[in-house]
Amino acid sequence: MSVTRAALERLPDAVQRRADAWRAAGKQIALVPTMGALHEGHTTLMRQARIQADVLVASVFVNPTQFGKGEDFTRYPRPLERDVQMASEAGVDLVFAPEPGTMYPAGYATFIEVEGITAVLEGAIRPGHFRGVATIVTKLLNIVKPHMAFFGQKDAQQVAVIKRMVSDLNIDCRLMIVPTVREADGLALSSRNTYLTPQQRREAPVLYRSLQVAERRIREGNADAEGVVEEMRALISTSSSGAIDYFSVADAETLQEIRGRVPACGILVSLAVRFGATRLIDNILIPGLHT
Amino acid sequence: MSVTRAALERLPDAVQRRADAWRAAGKQIALVPTMGALHEGHTTLMRQARIQADVLVASVFVNPTQFGKGEDFTRYPRPLERDVQMASEAGVDLVFAPEPGTMYPAGYATFIEVEGITAVLEGAIRPGHFRGVATIVTKLLNIVKPHMAFFGQKDAQQVAVIKRMVSDLNIDCRLMIVPTVREADGLALSSRNTYLTPQQRREAPVLYRSLQVAERRIREGNADAEGVVEEMRALISTSSSGAIDYFSVADAETLQEIRGRVPACGILVSLAVRFGATRLIDNILIPGLHT
Repeated sequence: MSVTRAALERLPDAVQRRADAWRAAGKQIALVPTMGALHEGHTTLMRQARIQADVLVASVFVNPTQFGKGEDFTRYPRPLERDVQMASEAGVDLVFAPEPGTMYPAGYATFIEVEGITAVLEGAIRPGHFRGVATIVTKLLNIVKPHMAFFGQKDAQQVAVIKRMVSDLNIDCRLMIVPTVREADGLALSSRNTYLTPQQRREAPVLYRSLQVAERRIREGNADAEGVVEEMRALISTSSSGAIDYFSVADAETLQEIRGRVPACGILVSLAVRFGATRLIDNILIPGLHT
Repeated sequence: MSVTRAALERLPDAVQRRADAWRAAGKQIALVPTMGALHEGHTTLMRQARIQADVLVASVFVNPTQFGKGEDFTRYPRPLERDVQMASEAGVDLVFAPEPGTMYPAGYATFIEVEGITAVLEGAIRPGHFRGVATIVTKLLNIVKPHMAFFGQKDAQQVAVIKRMVSDLNIDCRLMIVPTVREADGLALSSRNTYLTPQQRREAPVLYRSLQVAERRIREGNADAEGVVEEMRALISTSSSGAIDYFSVADAETLQEIRGRVPACGILVSLAVRFGATRLIDNILIPGLHT
């Protein structure tokens, strides 16, 4: 089967002119923002978006402002040709892949801070990360002007931060959150999985197993947050070489940590574990009224 | 002559739906953001905007996040009926006057920081002021979705901050900067002029006179920044009871203070002076290539 290759744009202005033309023609625009190194998790987002949109745009940009010092910005994979091919096969019409110097020219000075919700979990360990995420997402939404934007539940805190920001700044875009895509053994798909050694790869599925145990305890009712965390910690410590950054049982909207008895809905159970230099995150959402 | 009264909207969503309909119909939308208490300075912006736009929106919102502790947020005048009447006479089609609780609901957490340029002049004296300005302007642009937005040169640093922000965040809106409107004696129009006592009102025009002296020295060439500031300071001290917050001779784009010899273009001369509890600002822009 032949696939129409997605168009490639490098310049924000050119994308804005395309977006204006699409909107003038009454087309519904969807955006899937990515850092490239596409995998089945990304293409699942794209295929979901393809169903609902008239025009599907994917951005591919390894955003420097969301990486901390000593993180993997320079070694983050950038297989653009392969990404354009995969995006095309998933139904993307336009790939927006700007240069860093175009997105952050000399004199760049503007950043978006989402307070509170960014101070915990990933934000506590990666200071400035969500400031970079909030800033680049706002820029991408202003450039692509989508009616809807698709994000993966895999990055649960990112989802919570972007929901808060889009609501707070009156950004007129529907957020569509797509469940995490997993390997057959439960490991959440991530561009960083390619960094794992074979031994680490064999151990890594314990992360999801520990989340499933936590979910079962919470859904049974009367779970104790500290007890749930202790059980997850024991399971991972005994079955892997992973070093635990955090386990969290938190309110799914505010991300405030639960103490004592855990409500049976509106809960985000999340974790971050390091295998050597590779840091993996995963989560299970137990939905509530607003999440 | 009878004037069509502008429509009044209180809710962001309702304005967004109007904006979508106007854009779908190919109309050019202009926004004049104000804090109300309209005067000839505002209506000049509106009449300028009226010429260029198909649809003219003015916002009237005394934005709490740009006022510091001890500033005049509560006593800032809010004559909404009169404002709607004046806006209507100046050609405004829609007045957007939201409630504070609509713009900043419980749990609100998102703020926009423009670094560097906000740390000097007004920003040094009013910490958080431009964070509030940048945030509310972004919200208003997202709500009204204008093709162009009009601001007065009177708030010179605000103009510089918004230019930087709109460029940095790829906000697709043209900024139109309109010269300061003045009384016959040179005093820049401001909603805060109404706070002045008759004696203070008689003294206040010395602010503009001092700026004119500075402009003359700089345009003559070979002016020395410290000398220019000293001459302004002497003029104001000897002819008024005003307490000087700052005099500044700065690069018009970066707002970095000039030391020594002053270039003859691309310069912003600005000042802030307090008359009792009333703080007045004014400036003269000596345009350069980019300003």
